[in-house]
Amino acid sequence: MRVNWDTALSLGTQLLVERGVPAAHAALQAEVLVEGELKGHPSHGLQRLPRILERIERGLIDPASEGSWHWRSSSFLEMDGEKGLGPVVAQSALGLICARAGTTGIAVAGIRNSNHLGMLAYYVERIAENGQIGLALSSSEALVHPYGGTRGLIGTNPLAIAVPTAGRPMVVDLATGVVSMGKIHHHAATGLPIQEGWARDGGGKPTTDAAAATKGSIAPFGDAKGYALGMALELLVASIAGSALAPDVRGTLDADSVCNKGDVLIAIDVGEQPALLASFSSYLDRIRNSEPADPTHPVTVPGDGASQRRQRALHDGIDIAPRLWSELNALSCSNQSLVKGHGQ
Amino acid sequence: MRVNWDTALSLGTQLLVERGVPAAHAALQAEVLVEGELKGHPSHGLQRLPRILERIERGLIDPASEGSWHWRSSSFLEMDGEKGLGPVVAQSALGLICARAGTTGIAVAGIRNSNHLGMLAYYVERIAENGQIGLALSSSEALVHPYGGTRGLIGTNPLAIAVPTAGRPMVVDLATGVVSMGKIHHHAATGLPIQEGWARDGGGKPTTDAAAATKGSIAPFGDAKGYALGMALELLVASIAGSALAPDVRGTLDADSVCNKGDVLIAIDVGEQPALLASFSSYLDRIRNSEPADPTHPVTVPGDGASQRRQRALHDGIDIAPRLWSELNALSCSNQSLVKGHGQ
Repeated sequence: MRVNWDTALSLGTQLLVERGVPAAHAALQAEVLVEGELKGHPSHGLQRLPRILERIERGLIDPASEGSWHWRSSSFLEMDGEKGLGPVVAQSALGLICARAGTTGIAVAGIRNSNHLGMLAYYVERIAENGQIGLALSSSEALVHPYGGTRGLIGTNPLAIAVPTAGRPMVVDLATGVVSMGKIHHHAATGLPIQEGWARDGGGKPTTDAAAATKGSIAPFGDAKGYALGMALELLVASIAGSALAPDVRGTLDADSVCNKGDVLIAIDVGEQPALLASFSSYLDRIRNSEPADPTHPVTVPGDGASQRRQRALHDGIDIAPRLWSELNALSCSNQSLVKGHGQ
Repeated sequence: MRVNWDTALSLGTQLLVERGVPAAHAALQAEVLVEGELKGHPSHGLQRLPRILERIERGLIDPASEGSWHWRSSSFLEMDGEKGLGPVVAQSALGLICARAGTTGIAVAGIRNSNHLGMLAYYVERIAENGQIGLALSSSEALVHPYGGTRGLIGTNPLAIAVPTAGRPMVVDLATGVVSMGKIHHHAATGLPIQEGWARDGGGKPTTDAAAATKGSIAPFGDAKGYALGMALELLVASIAGSALAPDVRGTLDADSVCNKGDVLIAIDVGEQPALLASFSSYLDRIRNSEPADPTHPVTVPGDGASQRRQRALHDGIDIAPRLWSELNALSCSNQSLVKGHGQ
């Protein structure tokens, strides 16, 4: 079914406010989830909201927290999320490092004890809107196996980078697994097999059975190189944020544990460079206009697809599973009978 | 043939000194090339030396330069390499940003107008030896085609990251092409076909003919994700270093152009964290000891292979093509008859 983005945003915000989340925090958390929907990444969209609400109710998330911080040194921010909502804590850090990078040229924030950020693209886009280069990294539970290995020991360790151009910033947002566990769950739910090479089962054997793969581990993307990148990000985040390593990470998805993954945000200020930004835009257009391998599929630049999906969804509404939309509506206190029905 | 590393280092240094390179610069440039050999990456080893010597003779490299720099802001170093040898200029920048990161927490150097750095691992290892996290990025000529594209428009854009542990730092060093152009040239020279999916020919068609591929372009590693990463690094380097974009880059390999690619070095100081470093070492050992997909191939951690090859080569000598070794010896002024023969 189709739902207007502002209807989705209102409902998401309302559900959070009803659990005692301050209005500004609720609006931001809902916005980040709706952004995931708009860009066509429902795995980072509203389907995460019921679990967030549950975590708030259980005290695993403190929705009032904006984190506490201190500058370890002039360009290095240490942020304790104090169990706050991921987007709220990240926004605190982001404001501080962007302002600081304006004077020092570069600033980094290491964030621990915060909750799931949603799509990392959201944050680097905010940094790029500020005219700065943005980088964001997060760690996660151990879902990815080493290249040549069989056991999930590494986080999905996403990385997002946004670089300003004369037009829309170029935005890259990628996890280091070949596929997301969300997609494998989606295949399992719909009874579809998964591609060979995507995953191993709980016993460490290669599998195309999605249900079996949900109990196992995902392959790194790009073989040895993607594995190397994922490992580097694993240690980078733990080192800068002082957070747990993948095998010990809990709380990004479950309803039982305080979240102990880490996030890293970096802002780099290269000053005003209009000629350079214009050359970036020309370069990206040259790539878009270059000869494609398949004439029916023009070459795209990273972020183009998400941006097009977002424009379309802003106009036409978000595609959302009727079941999820019902579930969300049922979670509202303004719909008491349905609320009672939920979870029984 | 096998050559002792110190013999190779002496010859490399001597050849440079004979072209008027200051002794310390010659030793560093030779060391970086020999490190490439030791780690089993001859594409970044001594085979590059004849071209470096030629570039010095033609005035495309100023071997005395250590670059000129200024701090744009407290944590952002702007370095003009002034046509210096890549390793010499990078070492200047590295010393400055490591010292600065010790007080500001993080420091970045954007380097332009410098020459080829050789293996990036070398530089991040030096940062990690200083107890800091090191990142290094370089841009290059347009050798990689977009995902879904057919024309070389993106640099090979390598990325190296080193993170200190309680033992040897974990070192990742990867280019964002699925394979190096050096390897394709090697296949062409030995008459071997290349793997499907590695490259396209000069007309943009997929090819397994190595000779045809040398006139074409390389695929990004890891499909859309590797492409996205390569694009992000392309703009990151140009933005921070103020250097050219891939289609305009010249001078990393040729003997005709001043080199206009860029390099970025970042040092991050997380302070003394012995418990964290010990946990990293335990984690890496856990990965190494995890169940491999193939019982005859234990799981390795990024950098393990290079480190093992280096230990072996330090002991047993470097494997070097007899033809290259003869060529290098012939380039020495202490062997006049052969020098005269060269290039005629």
